[in-house]
Amino acid sequence: MSGEQKELLRIRRRAFQRERDLAQRLWRLGFAVVRGPASGAKAKRVIYPDLVAIKNRIIYIFEIKTKEKEDHIYIDEYQIIKLREFEKRSGGRAYIAIKVVDETDWRFVPIEALEKTGGGRYKIDKKFFREGLSLEDLYREASGDKPLTQYFKA
Amino acid sequence: MSGEQKELLRIRRRAFQRERDLAQRLWRLGFAVVRGPASGAKAKRVIYPDLVAIKNRIIYIFEIKTKEKEDHIYIDEYQIIKLREFEKRSGGRAYIAIKVVDETDWRFVPIEALEKTGGGRYKIDKKFFREGLSLEDLYREASGDKPLTQYFKA
Repeated sequence: MSGEQKELLRIRRRAFQRERDLAQRLWRLGFAVVRGPASGAKAKRVIYPDLVAIKNRIIYIFEIKTKEKEDHIYIDEYQIIKLREFEKRSGGRAYIAIKVVDETDWRFVPIEALEKTGGGRYKIDKKFFREGLSLEDLYREASGDKPLTQYFKA
Repeated sequence: MSGEQKELLRIRRRAFQRERDLAQRLWRLGFAVVRGPASGAKAKRVIYPDLVAIKNRIIYIFEIKTKEKEDHIYIDEYQIIKLREFEKRSGGRAYIAIKVVDETDWRFVPIEALEKTGGGRYKIDKKFFREGLSLEDLYREASGDKPLTQYFKA
């Protein structure tokens, strides 16, 4: 295996571990959790988000984006279209789950809060690493406390 | 690779294809679908069913069991406990998805309709290959037609 291949493998393995970390934390908060098959799986006819968490019939759809440093995140339009389709079918709400590795905790940005950029991509401002919804916010909503729309105006 | 290992691999690959087949059919019926990670994945701290399908916030949880011929199916108790836990967390309903390969179409048996046997296992009578709920039944319920409890008395 070349050094480049090894590096790719290492990056993939780390992404997988982070996804598992989020899944476990949601599980411990009482959510039912399903992780999609690893990206790169032959799953083109069906659209899979990275993670789906459900509590009391409230459905959270997650696309996961982690960064090595605190910087804006850009997302291709096809991913947003995919998440919207999943929202429409399930009756759930889609979020981008973001995290600066080894620095910030998980934060969640509902896809309707993303800004569309000139190049047909969507931007998540880096302020959301601090200001996005927390795991606790999701937990409170799913436990019937308060709808998240009250916290979050797009 | 030994002949035995090859045979195991072939069996696993086929099981995977059947799961994908069911996922695709549910998707074409308008469900949002998530497939769990392949069995054998290191996923012990979190419980994953084989497949979850959601439509209009109605949640279907599936454990998949296919057979080469029409025979009773036995399921270990820990799998039922796992499915009940997922039901409780999500507010969904768990089914065993059954099929005789190349012979019958998918049928679905709600876990509360299973009989507990002496050996601490649960039995699905082979009659359910014909009498279980069909994909159409699930579709009708999720589309707001009629709750499946009206079709199915445990």
